[in-house]
Amino acid sequence: MPELRRDPVGGRWVIIATERAFRPQDYHLARRTPKGGFCPFCEGNEDRTPPEILAYRAEDTQPNGPGWKLRVVPNKYPALQTEGETKERSWGVYQAMDGVGAHEVIIETPKHLTSPTEMPVEAFYDVVRCYRDRVLALKEDRRLAYALVFKNVGAVAGGSLEHTHSQLISTPVVPKRVGEEMDRCMDFFLDEGRCLLCAIVEQSLADGEHVVINEEGFLAIAPYASRFPFEVWILPKQHASHFEDSPLEMLEEFARVTHDVLLRLDGALNEPPYNYLLHTSPFTFDNLDHYHWHLEVIPRLTEVAGFEWGTGFHINPVVPERAAEHLRAALRQKLPAQTDPAPP
Amino acid sequence: MPELRRDPVGGRWVIIATERAFRPQDYHLARRTPKGGFCPFCEGNEDRTPPEILAYRAEDTQPNGPGWKLRVVPNKYPALQTEGETKERSWGVYQAMDGVGAHEVIIETPKHLTSPTEMPVEAFYDVVRCYRDRVLALKEDRRLAYALVFKNVGAVAGGSLEHTHSQLISTPVVPKRVGEEMDRCMDFFLDEGRCLLCAIVEQSLADGEHVVINEEGFLAIAPYASRFPFEVWILPKQHASHFEDSPLEMLEEFARVTHDVLLRLDGALNEPPYNYLLHTSPFTFDNLDHYHWHLEVIPRLTEVAGFEWGTGFHINPVVPERAAEHLRAALRQKLPAQTDPAPP
Repeated sequence: MPELRRDPVGGRWVIIATERAFRPQDYHLARRTPKGGFCPFCEGNEDRTPPEILAYRAEDTQPNGPGWKLRVVPNKYPALQTEGETKERSWGVYQAMDGVGAHEVIIETPKHLTSPTEMPVEAFYDVVRCYRDRVLALKEDRRLAYALVFKNVGAVAGGSLEHTHSQLISTPVVPKRVGEEMDRCMDFFLDEGRCLLCAIVEQSLADGEHVVINEEGFLAIAPYASRFPFEVWILPKQHASHFEDSPLEMLEEFARVTHDVLLRLDGALNEPPYNYLLHTSPFTFDNLDHYHWHLEVIPRLTEVAGFEWGTGFHINPVVPERAAEHLRAALRQKLPAQTDPAPP
Repeated sequence: MPELRRDPVGGRWVIIATERAFRPQDYHLARRTPKGGFCPFCEGNEDRTPPEILAYRAEDTQPNGPGWKLRVVPNKYPALQTEGETKERSWGVYQAMDGVGAHEVIIETPKHLTSPTEMPVEAFYDVVRCYRDRVLALKEDRRLAYALVFKNVGAVAGGSLEHTHSQLISTPVVPKRVGEEMDRCMDFFLDEGRCLLCAIVEQSLADGEHVVINEEGFLAIAPYASRFPFEVWILPKQHASHFEDSPLEMLEEFARVTHDVLLRLDGALNEPPYNYLLHTSPFTFDNLDHYHWHLEVIPRLTEVAGFEWGTGFHINPVVPERAAEHLRAALRQKLPAQTDPAPP
């Protein structure tokens, strides 16, 4: 019998096809984006991106030249622009405002690597630390309400360049799904007197079957009502509403757990295309008792988007408990690259 | 300057990239699903589907044999099952119920056509009439709350067989996005004393720039805050909450307008993959003053799903007013097939 499960955070009902066995060979979506001959993100090609906003680079090097380990640049084709005012205008039933905000690209490594799993975990910690640095900087801009950090890996996941990178879009409004999560978490808080995501952490630890990784400060789970096969959420075990307020030692552990999850997904699913998205609290609040930041990792294994988009109804052919089992058993197969790979 | 627009029905903010020109050559997604040698939906292969639930067929023919113009069969791999009870169970923060419901396939033609645009509009009217017949039949089942009619065309849109067909999933719960639309429409009704979609019809007619087709009873528009490039909504101009209560002459016009929209999309976008979804009211209400059924047509031209899924934030690179202009000018190029095409 298939099962309908309700995502307590998102409020969606999901159809879980409990009777099908998971067979990795059912999923054939290739990660790789078409290789071009030239990569604007490789070291030495700094003049082919807009000037850098931030870089972690050796002290004796010049901005926009070689010698960096991580660079942040404006997106060359930004979805939002930094100049302007955020005044709402309305027009009958319609509402609009200028597309003010920021759209940045985090180039995670000077080498032409195609995945964070090819980077040592220490380099991935720099990436996570950079997310924090940029969110803190953008938060100073009073026009902006939110910063979305995300990553698209593979063409079907929207990744248009293969050189490993993340993106950050900062918006003058709170994204709908984050707002909905916060509303549902507030309802739960008013009913139960505690944070919904803390309750999920607690229940996951008690029953164990959704746990992928259980470390001192972080938990990775295959959520009970996963919308996508092999969806994984990574949450701090202690309540924390704002990602950017995390102490560095906490981010170091977060980087390790996330890197481990990505290695397990690569191993279990043969390097699938995926997205990940950081859900954190809006800029306009300080510590919140009811909302809890987390990272959502979504492997892109199935092609059923229009129906899901149009209805909010998801059909997941892989039981989350089975996905968790596979990921717990998955080897972390890929070793950090020890030598420089050839340029593309 | 990009523009942020708010979808008044869905409540989402959408980034409209107002400065890019639309170039059809930017979109390369192919519609065609991989051709197999054998098609279970072609006339003569009736034994390769589950037994039919309904068929429009010549009077002297036998069920599950040749001689039909349209057949409805259970999906061979159903997301939901017809037997069982719909009792909710809960378990800590989780909620679940058995996956009871219906999952049907509407085989739209006995010939191996790959799109409704290859069918005469009269045959497409049969498809629309069949949607009504099945929704009315499923509504009798007191366990069920909703019927979702949808169509996936092309592999990237989730279409796994190319022989033109629609699907219907009937669920014991109301899909989240429909519920949200109804909530927002109710808020508007309480504030303004009228239906939000009626207000959109009125404003679209007044300003004209979102109109694709304006017929006596139906309007096709490129919505002001379209989430997807070339998204089109088809709405009855007069208020109507339940699709299945439409008189046949209204459905005949709906079939004509929808067929026309699909022809224009095929012409303007070189036969894109697409989904369409019928949003109508839940079974459990009679006529509603605040909600208005409509069809959402979503061409699948861009691959940016994970970000949108994770945030509810859409980036649309084509200004809806420009999309409407293109579609108004588009030739309805493809003529109905006059001769039987070769079998696959």
